Amino acid sequence: MKAEIIAVGTELLMGQISNTNAQFIAEQLNELGISHYIQTVIGDNPERLIQVTKQAEKRSDIIIYTGGIGPTRDDLTKETLAQYLDEPLAIDEEAWQSIQASFKGRIMVDSNKKMALAFTHGTTLPNHSGQAIGSIIEKGKHKYIILPGPPSEMRPMFMQYVRDYLLEESETKVIKSRFLRFFGIGESLLADKLDDLTIQDNPTVATYASDYINMVRVTASGNHLVEVTDLLETAVKQIKSRVGEYLFAEGKEMTPADALKNYLVDTNQTIGFSESLTGGLASATLVNVPGASKVLAGSIVAYSSQIKHQILGIPQEILDTDGMVSEPCAKAMAESALEKLDTDVAISFTGVAGPGKMEGHKPGTVYVGYAFRHKPTEVIKYQLTGNREAVRKRIIYTAFLHITN
Amino acid sequence: MKAEIIAVGTELLMGQISNTNAQFIAEQLNELGISHYIQTVIGDNPERLIQVTKQAEKRSDIIIYTGGIGPTRDDLTKETLAQYLDEPLAIDEEAWQSIQASFKGRIMVDSNKKMALAFTHGTTLPNHSGQAIGSIIEKGKHKYIILPGPPSEMRPMFMQYVRDYLLEESETKVIKSRFLRFFGIGESLLADKLDDLTIQDNPTVATYASDYINMVRVTASGNHLVEVTDLLETAVKQIKSRVGEYLFAEGKEMTPADALKNYLVDTNQTIGFSESLTGGLASATLVNVPGASKVLAGSIVAYSSQIKHQILGIPQEILDTDGMVSEPCAKAMAESALEKLDTDVAISFTGVAGPGKMEGHKPGTVYVGYAFRHKPTEVIKYQLTGNREAVRKRIIYTAFLHITN
Repeated sequence: MKAEIIAVGTELLMGQISNTNAQFIAEQLNELGISHYIQTVIGDNPERLIQVTKQAEKRSDIIIYTGGIGPTRDDLTKETLAQYLDEPLAIDEEAWQSIQASFKGRIMVDSNKKMALAFTHGTTLPNHSGQAIGSIIEKGKHKYIILPGPPSEMRPMFMQYVRDYLLEESETKVIKSRFLRFFGIGESLLADKLDDLTIQDNPTVATYASDYINMVRVTASGNHLVEVTDLLETAVKQIKSRVGEYLFAEGKEMTPADALKNYLVDTNQTIGFSESLTGGLASATLVNVPGASKVLAGSIVAYSSQIKHQILGIPQEILDTDGMVSEPCAKAMAESALEKLDTDVAISFTGVAGPGKMEGHKPGTVYVGYAFRHKPTEVIKYQLTGNREAVRKRIIYTAFLHITN
Repeated sequence: MKAEIIAVGTELLMGQISNTNAQFIAEQLNELGISHYIQTVIGDNPERLIQVTKQAEKRSDIIIYTGGIGPTRDDLTKETLAQYLDEPLAIDEEAWQSIQASFKGRIMVDSNKKMALAFTHGTTLPNHSGQAIGSIIEKGKHKYIILPGPPSEMRPMFMQYVRDYLLEESETKVIKSRFLRFFGIGESLLADKLDDLTIQDNPTVATYASDYINMVRVTASGNHLVEVTDLLETAVKQIKSRVGEYLFAEGKEMTPADALKNYLVDTNQTIGFSESLTGGLASATLVNVPGASKVLAGSIVAYSSQIKHQILGIPQEILDTDGMVSEPCAKAMAESALEKLDTDVAISFTGVAGPGKMEGHKPGTVYVGYAFRHKPTEVIKYQLTGNREAVRKRIIYTAFLHITN
């Protein structure tokens, strides 16, 4: 079973957007165990759509289209394929009523009706996040799957309807994945450590990096759940034995901020920050996690030396003698925040984001103070690499995970 | 003159990365006035590379390849094309020395040498951001341009060497762009207001949205600089007359935080924040701008009600009677920050990020206090839409631009 992806949209050819739909579908096909060797992008052009469809038919069994099913006169994916395949289209009444309802009170033009077009002999894919419905039509030995262009509509439609359809087409019966999240290990080093695992067939192991976090996906397939679960467990054990020290969570979406929030909720503790280097980003990162208000009291962002003295009460002597980027300053900042914000834990960040030096310290030098209600304050000096944003995000994740460990 | 893009890389087919190279090159081709109707993605597979190259030759004059020129045994783009085109490859000595130098002290394997391969009858494209050199080879009526896969290497190589090469191939002599940045107008409304301009040929007008900011690119081409500048000026005037009230900056990279920092530097003022809803993100957003330390004193992030009272000194009466999400609270928060941080301007943020209601207010309800050293405090109530992140970012940008206006 081979599939290929054809993305239709002039905005892709203009470079206005990146083809993230292809990435999403490719990942799904890979998880489903369906082979996939080629992706094509074309504009909203009927002639070229037929041309690339003919080429795709020679190579693949399943052709997945994204885009070109909206209300404008350029949107012609369904109409073009209907003509090419000689398969009639008709208005799906349910979809059409739902489109009309969504326009309540707003001006609606005739062309909106075409978003409710479906293949008479095909399967309709409802669009719960937008208007234009998708469609699956089988003809000869080919299956044509037509999906919307906006990722916010395409993804839920794929997950809800197309995934199960493809799973039936796939030769494997059970497919399951586990996701491991790592921080503090470089992407290439991680890939290198897992090199032999990434070339094996079942389970497949793939590494991804985003927002300074590395994710490893392990996907196994087989005929029975027990067999698949065992395969996954064995691979996860192997991975943990090699790079387990950098693992901070299991799951697709977990961040160090989630890990910190969960830890604080579990141990019934509150937290506060005193931030110089990070300028409020430590607090803002934790605030992003739903339910953060349960554990976060606040943060004192003392960017200037004067505010460090006035608001945090850092002794002028420390600022003059040791400097803002120093162990004593980080200690005093953390302890001041602990007291002023009246929390169980307080973290301070002071250092050099770069690009220039500060107080003689090179970029990436950071002192983090960890103050606790019931144990002595700890200060750790870190030396990080990367640009301003990288230094800030990395030190925040490092500190969050230092608390949870 | 027609061009097409072939991206080579199994990681693209696995869905590990999105094809941002195609987006970048597409945008460039569009700016350069070179037609471009199709993009293809394949894995590191010689047979398929030749297959799609043959198809591309039928449609296009210029074929641009990205990826498959690194050191691993899978990287075969240059070798495959050399064999297919019957054009010899040889080690570029300069590139090879530079690769050896970059490995100083690290273990280097033989396969690194292939990154210095260049077409004997072609043009070498030096790689100043990595090791693998690019290449341009002309054969028959086709031009084959081979670039690295990593965007951090491909982009500078394209800008430094390929752009000028393509400009010579393009029929136009002078091409210039201007970028206008908008905030506070929806993407679809902006596109609608400029609809007639986006379908014209010269200048071309395109709209993009990212991080809640809308950008309009105007690109004009012609034989003389004066002619091109005039075309741009006329189009920019038309755009300003329609949506000028939402324009906050001209330039490719400017953000509302840049605009705020520039305004404060120009007027010799300092700023501080007192944040509830935004949890430190207002301060962190300004800190991201180089040189922010000149204007930013700090921020008091009072996430809990208790801290609002204790640190900001918000009267318990206001918190009990009016609530945290109220005009009096926003006013007191801004004035407290102004005094405690001793700045010329202070902005407070209190509101509901969602998804649930708070104190009876629906998500997106935000009060922003603007306190000034030399004029009375102002509080504005806003009603925003979107998820937690959207509400936070939008209100921060709104407040930043309220100060600069």
